[in-house]
Amino acid sequence: MKQPYVWPESVRAAFCFTIDVDAESPQLWRKRKQPSLSMNELEQRFYGLREGIWHLLDLLARYEVSATCFVPIHEAVTRPWLLETLVEAGHEIGLHGVLHEIVSELTRDQFAEIVEKGLETVVRYTGKKPSGFRSPAWEMTPWAFDVLHEAGIAYDSSLSGNDHPYSLGDTTEIPIQWPLDDAVFFRYAGTGADRWPPCSTSDAAASWLDICESMERFGGSVVTTVHPWITGRSYRTGLAEALLKHARNTSGLWICTAGELAAYHASSQNHEVFMEELNPPFLSQGRPT
Amino acid sequence: MKQPYVWPESVRAAFCFTIDVDAESPQLWRKRKQPSLSMNELEQRFYGLREGIWHLLDLLARYEVSATCFVPIHEAVTRPWLLETLVEAGHEIGLHGVLHEIVSELTRDQFAEIVEKGLETVVRYTGKKPSGFRSPAWEMTPWAFDVLHEAGIAYDSSLSGNDHPYSLGDTTEIPIQWPLDDAVFFRYAGTGADRWPPCSTSDAAASWLDICESMERFGGSVVTTVHPWITGRSYRTGLAEALLKHARNTSGLWICTAGELAAYHASSQNHEVFMEELNPPFLSQGRPT
Amino acid sequence: MKQPYVWPESVRAAFCFTIDVDAESPQLWRKRKQPSLSMNELEQRFYGLREGIWHLLDLLARYEVSATCFVPIHEAVTRPWLLETLVEAGHEIGLHGVLHEIVSELTRDQFAEIVEKGLETVVRYTGKKPSGFRSPAWEMTPWAFDVLHEAGIAYDSSLSGNDHPYSLGDTTEIPIQWPLDDAVFFRYAGTGADRWPPCSTSDAAASWLDICESMERFGGSVVTTVHPWITGRSYRTGLAEALLKHARNTSGLWICTAGELAAYHASSQNHEVFMEELNPPFLSQGRPT
Amino acid sequence: MKQPYVWPESVRAAFCFTIDVDAESPQLWRKRKQPSLSMNELEQRFYGLREGIWHLLDLLARYEVSATCFVPIHEAVTRPWLLETLVEAGHEIGLHGVLHEIVSELTRDQFAEIVEKGLETVVRYTGKKPSGFRSPAWEMTPWAFDVLHEAGIAYDSSLSGNDHPYSLGDTTEIPIQWPLDDAVFFRYAGTGADRWPPCSTSDAAASWLDICESMERFGGSVVTTVHPWITGRSYRTGLAEALLKHARNTSGLWICTAGELAAYHASSQNHEVFMEELNPPFLSQGRPT
Repeated sequence: MKQPYVWPESVRAAFCFTIDVDAESPQLWRKRKQPSLSMNELEQRFYGLREGIWHLLDLLARYEVSATCFVPIHEAVTRPWLLETLVEAGHEIGLHGVLHEIVSELTRDQFAEIVEKGLETVVRYTGKKPSGFRSPAWEMTPWAFDVLHEAGIAYDSSLSGNDHPYSLGDTTEIPIQWPLDDAVFFRYAGTGADRWPPCSTSDAAASWLDICESMERFGGSVVTTVHPWITGRSYRTGLAEALLKHARNTSGLWICTAGELAAYHASSQNHEVFMEELNPPFLSQGRPT
Repeated sequence: MKQPYVWPESVRAAFCFTIDVDAESPQLWRKRKQPSLSMNELEQRFYGLREGIWHLLDLLARYEVSATCFVPIHEAVTRPWLLETLVEAGHEIGLHGVLHEIVSELTRDQFAEIVEKGLETVVRYTGKKPSGFRSPAWEMTPWAFDVLHEAGIAYDSSLSGNDHPYSLGDTTEIPIQWPLDDAVFFRYAGTGADRWPPCSTSDAAASWLDICESMERFGGSVVTTVHPWITGRSYRTGLAEALLKHARNTSGLWICTAGELAAYHASSQNHEVFMEELNPPFLSQGRPT
Repeated sequence: MKQPYVWPESVRAAFCFTIDVDAESPQLWRKRKQPSLSMNELEQRFYGLREGIWHLLDLLARYEVSATCFVPIHEAVTRPWLLETLVEAGHEIGLHGVLHEIVSELTRDQFAEIVEKGLETVVRYTGKKPSGFRSPAWEMTPWAFDVLHEAGIAYDSSLSGNDHPYSLGDTTEIPIQWPLDDAVFFRYAGTGADRWPPCSTSDAAASWLDICESMERFGGSVVTTVHPWITGRSYRTGLAEALLKHARNTSGLWICTAGELAAYHASSQNHEVFMEELNPPFLSQGRPT
Repeated sequence: MKQPYVWPESVRAAFCFTIDVDAESPQLWRKRKQPSLSMNELEQRFYGLREGIWHLLDLLARYEVSATCFVPIHEAVTRPWLLETLVEAGHEIGLHGVLHEIVSELTRDQFAEIVEKGLETVVRYTGKKPSGFRSPAWEMTPWAFDVLHEAGIAYDSSLSGNDHPYSLGDTTEIPIQWPLDDAVFFRYAGTGADRWPPCSTSDAAASWLDICESMERFGGSVVTTVHPWITGRSYRTGLAEALLKHARNTSGLWICTAGELAAYHASSQNHEVFMEELNPPFLSQGRPT
């Protein structure tokens, strides 16, 4: 009854290495009404574009992998070298808000402005219009999908409704998985609001590799997410290296950017087979009266 | 002083594979007063009846195991293929609320209506009256047991008062265990309300198998619970497979549905030996005055 | 500068197996102003004196170990067989409140009444006055120590100020350690208030054995605490068995009750060497003015 | 693009063993408006200067390592033997507040007074002015850095903006890492406010050694932090011993105090290369208008 996802010949699964290139913007957004900021968390976050990004770029170059980098505009304009450096190293740029704004806390107009500013900025720095968006904190709304479509964004990568690309309304969804997000396991601000301690790098790597292998066995698309201030930290690069080594050593695995994966999906028969509605009937139908 | 549970000849313990077949209904119930819903959590939940259930059905067929499926009526009527598919594959259907309502937040009349609607719907789709109920979130009240008894429901599977079936008032209880519920270890909504990160599949499987073996040594009934949107996820099916493989490879283990287990209990001497009160004297007797 | 604790000849460390024999009383105390009670948690707790205590008593008999059982009066009078059974099996009885009352939430008079009622009840059931007290949730106050002393209670076992017995005011303290309390690792009520998932039995056992060995190397007293409804659960008895096996197989280890350990401390030179004040000068001296 | 940190000849990385020598002061500060104090947590904390500090000093002597001890003035004056003992054993003394005050909750004047009192007290007990400060709970503010500079404190060790020393305004920062703080993994007060259970010593040690090795491979400075009441506990000394053994057995590793490391940094070319601003432009520039 369940149909398999159809891959190009000799491919059995896909692998994307994605980087959410946020430094201080998530903290600035969260604390936008309280000017007092934790220096401890800020300095941790600054590390990402002081040091962490170079560790990741070095690994990607050594394993010859092109990553997809979702960059908030705040980080792009305060580090004018950033977008150019990423593009020259062969990586894809995707949108990630201006100040890492949580989409569900915005109005539709605010979000449209943020997407417009994002497109304009990335084109200005790189000469190329991005085709993808990842929502900060991975939260979306149906109207945000409409905004993306109207702005000509081909794909989103924020939700988890399948283990391979699928169509969600007019947009291609490149699904992510919380258990493949480094922040879930490692982020520890030390402000008293943390709810669990940081995981060990080797435990995380073992679990992620296990997930990779399972998804590949099922013919899915593995989309891993790391942050320069988290996995870019010297003592966590082992996670990134384990993933890249695994991808390079796995036969039949298509190592691609999220943009390449979305383009393949949209042009293939998968586009019609794995088509979902933005407001599925489940949400209203059949509820008790 | 403690009596052993008496099993049929050549049986030393029992094993039930149960599935709580809820997709979006728990989230719809929880957010029923706030229309805004997290798309991230919703898409995770939709996955369960898009993909996850097929992964589980495939494994059950390969290991020739009949499961017990507790299905909220919301999921049953919005996916009209669901109950029929489960029954044709040889699985038992049990009640699980209409919209996954938490029993202790209902009035007795509301709960009676929900049970009535559940019975009517399952009979309409499958032609057969279910004999069991599992309360959403595993919370019960004494008056809810009365409602079940009046509706002719023979067993409940929501509490943990023993490691084998027991009688609780007029109802047979098929006890569950929190450490054998996949949601405890894997559920991660990413909404900021999560209190711990998702566990690795192999760590969970190791711990569950250890519990299975201990309970079997004590002559108990192992009742495992999985969800299509959690363990049905491609990278977590390894947990389900480890359990099914273990059950198939363990001699003296009766692999049965919860309904078969409850029927055995009610017809055996165990029914009188392991008889507990719904309002035991401990609750009022002996308290300081 | 630091003096070693002096043990009897040929002894290098001590080991106590203690059981906090509470079933529903902690929940009744906590919810005393809200009559609604979670049946799920209650049935978990009832298990302790339905099944769990027999599992523990069986293990203690097989390994020939006398435990110290801290029993709330509520549990003692609602299960009239309890105290007698424990005493006949060779175990020590200690006080643990009437309804597992948190000491710091009581007045001094209320606590004095609770201690008096405890002494009277234990003497009535067992013919013997208990010599020890363990505070529910391991929280104490200086005035509670005065009450214990006035009531002729020789030792308390609720605090962690050393790794071997010490004198705290007029009372001997048999120190406990949170990492040797089973509730810390396993308790999971499922009510939505849990802050972490239950640990695996084998992980807990590995960590506890490591603690035992370290404390023994330092010449300390290992005081482990289990509950009938937690470690008495069939699939967690492995923790208790690992501890008892370890204790039996370790040379130079004095396996004793908390009462025996306290009596040794009070009669030895350690009593003067390891003497601490109830209100040490650290609490007021040297604070900024 | 990223420059390596320059170490003295034949050195490839640095290792500092630091001790935050607080006992009850953090609890006294936190509860300063509520006189009621948890005896359970207090007795755990008293352990640190009753027993734990001797365990750590013994290990440091055996492995011939000089540690950096950040001592709140409260602990120093209520244990008049403390500072002298530490200095005589060859360890560095750094400031850590008077009553472990959280810097961000103070006014600038209050903080200046605390620093002044700290300097005066340490000079009085040891005859030597300390050169470093570590903020309680590792939280800092830009004005606190100004106060430190005005008071002639050369270095701070509270933030995580790099994996080796760096210059932050006029101060040298010796960066710490939350995953190398024992309190993150082991602190468990048992008051109901804990958010995760205590970690096993061997799991923590494995993870810390992994971090040490990674940081050393990247040419960084490993700064570990332990507390006498946490890692000084007999059953956690294994963590400290594993670290000291690792440091002694690693070639090319400079085992130094934080003060020595800061002095090296300030006198080397690294001082100019790794220079960061206290109020970097990222905090205001590029934010949406």
